[in-house]
Amino acid sequence: MTKLTQIATYLGKENWDMTFITNPTTVQYLTGFAMDPHERILGLMIFPDQEPLLFTPELEVEKAKTHVNFDVIGYADSENPWAKIKAHLAGRQIKTIAVEYDHLILSKSDGLKSVFDGLSFANLTPFINRMRLIKSDDEIKKMIVAGEYADRCFDIGFRFAASEPDLTEMDVVAKIEFEMKRQGISEMSFETMVLTGGRAANPHGVPEAIAIQQNKLLLFDLGVMANGYASDASRTIAIGQPSDFDRKIYEITREAQQAAFDFVKPGVTAFEVDKVARDVITKAGYGEYFTHRTGHGIGMDVHEFPSIGGSEDITIEKGMCFSIEPGIYIPNQVGVRIEDCLYVTETGAESFTQTSKDLLIF
Amino acid sequence: MTKLTQIATYLGKENWDMTFITNPTTVQYLTGFAMDPHERILGLMIFPDQEPLLFTPELEVEKAKTHVNFDVIGYADSENPWAKIKAHLAGRQIKTIAVEYDHLILSKSDGLKSVFDGLSFANLTPFINRMRLIKSDDEIKKMIVAGEYADRCFDIGFRFAASEPDLTEMDVVAKIEFEMKRQGISEMSFETMVLTGGRAANPHGVPEAIAIQQNKLLLFDLGVMANGYASDASRTIAIGQPSDFDRKIYEITREAQQAAFDFVKPGVTAFEVDKVARDVITKAGYGEYFTHRTGHGIGMDVHEFPSIGGSEDITIEKGMCFSIEPGIYIPNQVGVRIEDCLYVTETGAESFTQTSKDLLIF
Repeated sequence: MTKLTQIATYLGKENWDMTFITNPTTVQYLTGFAMDPHERILGLMIFPDQEPLLFTPELEVEKAKTHVNFDVIGYADSENPWAKIKAHLAGRQIKTIAVEYDHLILSKSDGLKSVFDGLSFANLTPFINRMRLIKSDDEIKKMIVAGEYADRCFDIGFRFAASEPDLTEMDVVAKIEFEMKRQGISEMSFETMVLTGGRAANPHGVPEAIAIQQNKLLLFDLGVMANGYASDASRTIAIGQPSDFDRKIYEITREAQQAAFDFVKPGVTAFEVDKVARDVITKAGYGEYFTHRTGHGIGMDVHEFPSIGGSEDITIEKGMCFSIEPGIYIPNQVGVRIEDCLYVTETGAESFTQTSKDLLIF
Repeated sequence: MTKLTQIATYLGKENWDMTFITNPTTVQYLTGFAMDPHERILGLMIFPDQEPLLFTPELEVEKAKTHVNFDVIGYADSENPWAKIKAHLAGRQIKTIAVEYDHLILSKSDGLKSVFDGLSFANLTPFINRMRLIKSDDEIKKMIVAGEYADRCFDIGFRFAASEPDLTEMDVVAKIEFEMKRQGISEMSFETMVLTGGRAANPHGVPEAIAIQQNKLLLFDLGVMANGYASDASRTIAIGQPSDFDRKIYEITREAQQAAFDFVKPGVTAFEVDKVARDVITKAGYGEYFTHRTGHGIGMDVHEFPSIGGSEDITIEKGMCFSIEPGIYIPNQVGVRIEDCLYVTETGAESFTQTSKDLLIF
């Protein structure tokens, strides 16, 4: 059963009249058609009892038609998109539209309400999350490729950071992204992070034109988009000889990351995985400095369902893909994070990234 | 009156109980605090009758406190954010929350509804759009800087594209972004576009590892983020000697762009500006190939309110900033777009970008 048919069947079961899927990533997942409508409107309409319709800005119609074998409706900037949608559905009773609560903004839900009297919405996000949660072999192959590029980024970045004195964090970011573009990667999966010394103690720090410190740790967090799939990995290396304290923090983080990774297999829960990492750091006395969840799902989005150690638990299954990324952040002093994303196998897990987790000294 | 006070006053007038502002750009506009919460929750609560509150992920609390002089509430990944918000508002009657309909997603509006009985929402987007629409002198100064970087990008890109044969579109993108990062620009305002020959006939084309064609036009569309403000500009140059037809299409586009630019002043309308550009192209016989609006607002977002030639009209006022970017796109043959963003003065408009609009031949 194709993905579109799965959704059509689900709509029928729930007695919902149609979808209006607005998340471009979901549209790409379901149809292969990739585009970002920005403030314009993209909507994939799936019905329980007829062929789907794709609604896009006029500019994208031709491209869309090369991806889907059903009708594509375009609208010009000067047209009212909601009225146009309604006109194409003339004669249908539309009472309930299934939309992604995690994506649809109120102005667009209001747009739909403006043309369908008495409309109500149903939340399609859980069903889509569930579909996207378990990756197919084909998806995992694409994610392995994305992971290989992340390993290349580390290699490029580590060597460049150590290649001359006075380089800044931003220089290293520039070098990594330049080499990726030259290799045909058009998009990183998020803003590449390179943070020196105590600056890495902010888990969401932003690289600046600030010189890389000698005899300190240097944290990298990066990933690419390849064939529509994301990679995401972190490594912390040393430039020169780090202090014994920095080495100790590194080894605790590494132990936590490895323990959680090794614990992953079908049947354990996300909370348990989080606890394994957290317990290592807590027992070493640094629990208060591990200030975020252990991981997040990954796939076509760099952050997707589920959370590993968030506010909801989930049982791990074969085919799930997520990060294991404990960190220790001691303000103004040192920050260490080690992160691999993995896919769950029958008996355990495999990493998408292979760069050594030994403390590499440059 | 500060921006926060303007909003508080407006709330009082409308009899709304508070805001829950979720758009990170709006939060930055109002407070100076910049962060991207991704799937986590950021909410700026402004009240008619008490100090604001900022709600952020725990990781961001310390940084937020350096920007605002009111309370910051953090929440950990393991906490229910909505319950935490409610607890902080204990004792207040919250019946109507003003939110940005152009940003708030249904899952978050449902989150707020889950803790406030009988809650309704009011749309704050028009008020925020109106605030952000007219740029202050300080904002325009920042946008001039962002425009200067766009001019530098053109200079780098033009020279690099012509520097050796067999370079690809992506090579040129890589070079431009590398040099920007080395100059301290951490973020482009959108994915840099470099498209060769007929590939530029897709206004939303994506650069690839495809060789730049000789004796064809080469289209650049790019911009940077600098100090929180965006630039956005397009130029089309020639690599080698283009055909007479390509030159003709170029000159029509240039005439349309210049005519619309020269027409802009306080008191004219967006529809009129669009018509001036469109008439030039239509009279030359290529109206059907100018497939998008003439422009869009720009500021902290690269695309923001208003549209120039969209579905709604607006009267132009001093301090508005928007693009003028007509284009002619003849499928598989040639694509030309010339774009400057401008700010409206007392009597006309000034461009943020100064790169020549003559057909430059490399």
